Amino acid sequence: MSGPRYTPLVKTLPSTVPFVGPETQERNRGSLFRARLGANESVFGPSPNAIEAMANAASETWMYGDPENHYLKEALAKHYNIAPENIVVGEGIDGLFGYLARMLVENGTPVVTSLGAYPTFNFHVSGYGGELHMVPFKGDGEDPAALLSKTKELNAPLTYFSNPNNPMGSWHSKETVQELIDGIPDGGLLCLDEAYIEFAQEDIAPDIDVTNERVIRFRTFSKGYGMAGARVGYGIASAELITAFNKIRNHFGMTRISQAGALAALADQDYLQKVKETVWNSCATIASIARDNDLTPLPTATNFVTIDCGKDGDYAKRVVAELVARDVFVRMPFVEPQNRCIRVSAGTEKDLAIFAEELPKALKAAL
Amino acid sequence: MSGPRYTPLVKTLPSTVPFVGPETQERNRGSLFRARLGANESVFGPSPNAIEAMANAASETWMYGDPENHYLKEALAKHYNIAPENIVVGEGIDGLFGYLARMLVENGTPVVTSLGAYPTFNFHVSGYGGELHMVPFKGDGEDPAALLSKTKELNAPLTYFSNPNNPMGSWHSKETVQELIDGIPDGGLLCLDEAYIEFAQEDIAPDIDVTNERVIRFRTFSKGYGMAGARVGYGIASAELITAFNKIRNHFGMTRISQAGALAALADQDYLQKVKETVWNSCATIASIARDNDLTPLPTATNFVTIDCGKDGDYAKRVVAELVARDVFVRMPFVEPQNRCIRVSAGTEKDLAIFAEELPKALKAAL
Repeated sequence: MSGPRYTPLVKTLPSTVPFVGPETQERNRGSLFRARLGANESVFGPSPNAIEAMANAASETWMYGDPENHYLKEALAKHYNIAPENIVVGEGIDGLFGYLARMLVENGTPVVTSLGAYPTFNFHVSGYGGELHMVPFKGDGEDPAALLSKTKELNAPLTYFSNPNNPMGSWHSKETVQELIDGIPDGGLLCLDEAYIEFAQEDIAPDIDVTNERVIRFRTFSKGYGMAGARVGYGIASAELITAFNKIRNHFGMTRISQAGALAALADQDYLQKVKETVWNSCATIASIARDNDLTPLPTATNFVTIDCGKDGDYAKRVVAELVARDVFVRMPFVEPQNRCIRVSAGTEKDLAIFAEELPKALKAAL
Repeated sequence: MSGPRYTPLVKTLPSTVPFVGPETQERNRGSLFRARLGANESVFGPSPNAIEAMANAASETWMYGDPENHYLKEALAKHYNIAPENIVVGEGIDGLFGYLARMLVENGTPVVTSLGAYPTFNFHVSGYGGELHMVPFKGDGEDPAALLSKTKELNAPLTYFSNPNNPMGSWHSKETVQELIDGIPDGGLLCLDEAYIEFAQEDIAPDIDVTNERVIRFRTFSKGYGMAGARVGYGIASAELITAFNKIRNHFGMTRISQAGALAALADQDYLQKVKETVWNSCATIASIARDNDLTPLPTATNFVTIDCGKDGDYAKRVVAELVARDVFVRMPFVEPQNRCIRVSAGTEKDLAIFAEELPKALKAAL
């Protein structure tokens, strides 16, 4: 007897996942992490107003959420001085990447990104049969000129670029990003991932121009707003592109509680400002701990610090394993030569005290 | 200048949505519904334990949810006496339908369902280029023999069947459904939608057999467990089919709060039992209100009553419009001859008092 008849494409896909979650690691290890510094979550959490809004919405969860995400889009539109028609809200940026890939990618479609950039984007592109073309990082950042040149060479309909970059924490100036946007050829689309944009200490985001059909910006409540577990991401683009999401998206996919939480979080910009300052201090402490151990912290515009361990990828992998063995959850870049580094998310003072205590032991054990 | 290069398939898709939400109607009308009886939500809500679990989880929402949904799958596995490997959890049954269609459907793939059955299944099948073949209802229920015969005729890899059925509230015996499962040909897959199964007053669900590769069962926390706004659906199938979901699903798509809520809801079977009894009473009251107005309530195994208004679809449409104009949110089947009916979800005593008051006025106005 034969099983279900999968499409030829789905048959070829691996069932490996982009990331193994910390809970899986905890279950495999049989013990809990003492410091959760590996997923670039914001341990400082959402605004207390958002927590209260979510707790209050719990009793309303018998109702489906509004499939139009009306009030959240309205609030975001006001925040950015654009129209609700220029915003799509979805199940995290990950979910929106899936929809975007579905709209533009079919078997053999060339898509351009950087080698070592966000794997979940790649997961979705490959999942729709796209052919990923990866441009190497330049130094420890994405290389806009090379991305543009590869896009033109392949006449690619989709190009990924993040600013700031995960996993390196690096960034480009708003002028450089604007040049990249301007350089995208007719019929091309820049997927500009700004998940970490709130943490940048200088203004690195080009002005939003919703008349430009060649760029879609992705932002999220997972990072700066501290709501990773609520799955609220959004895209900003031309009204035509936003409308196209309605052809395929899971219209009732957003939870009612997350909608309420995101709305309250967005309204509390004072709290966001406080989180940013706390994160900057925390990143400075991580950098200082790195230097205390003769390691080199890289500059960051995010809520994490990527630390150059000064040796090869095997060594950094051992450092990560030794930290994990000491109940400190961290991750690392997975492509050479960036994989000489480990990546540590901003944490509480207590988290960083644990990290400071365990790092020298891990480094020694990894030698 | 040309816009983004959508795939040929996406270009052909309409941007119409399966359902207009009640909030959209409220905004268009400029007033709120007094009775929300149109979306088959459970106004009786989730278990207080689930509400408490969700409220408590609000402060943990800085963390991503477990991408494996480990504890929920473990609890469901125990509940059904199967293995966690036989369960996929996703963003409502709607979200899971999208994944299922993606796995099995490409341009021109024949898919069999009933004319007038759940439109969101159709939305996803069409969204992947599938060719929908619709079998008429028999009486006011789905027609298993006709579905089977059409499936064989077309050698279709996917067949939809719901038990109980939405929008009619009708159902088939477990023996009939088992015959349908057994009749699915090699290489075929029955998508058995049991969203409303908890409300059936007799046992109409065939035994779960996870060794059978020709059926996947879908159930949800949206209906019996009263958590529509939390977006927690799950599929039960062979381990191989479940694994295939991992190739394409949004791994971090579930919210942490919903995971906590579903786990607590499942654990409170006493509350579920109470809700079922309350829903049965409420449906009996709706039926009685219908009869008081010389209408014919259809038998139901769900949390709604479909009421035969005794005339044609245009009349029923006017009745719905007149109820909506009187702040009573209801919906109706959209295919002839089932569209002679309106569909009313179980409600509180207060909800039904409003319905009882407004129905005769609406019927009169619709004449």
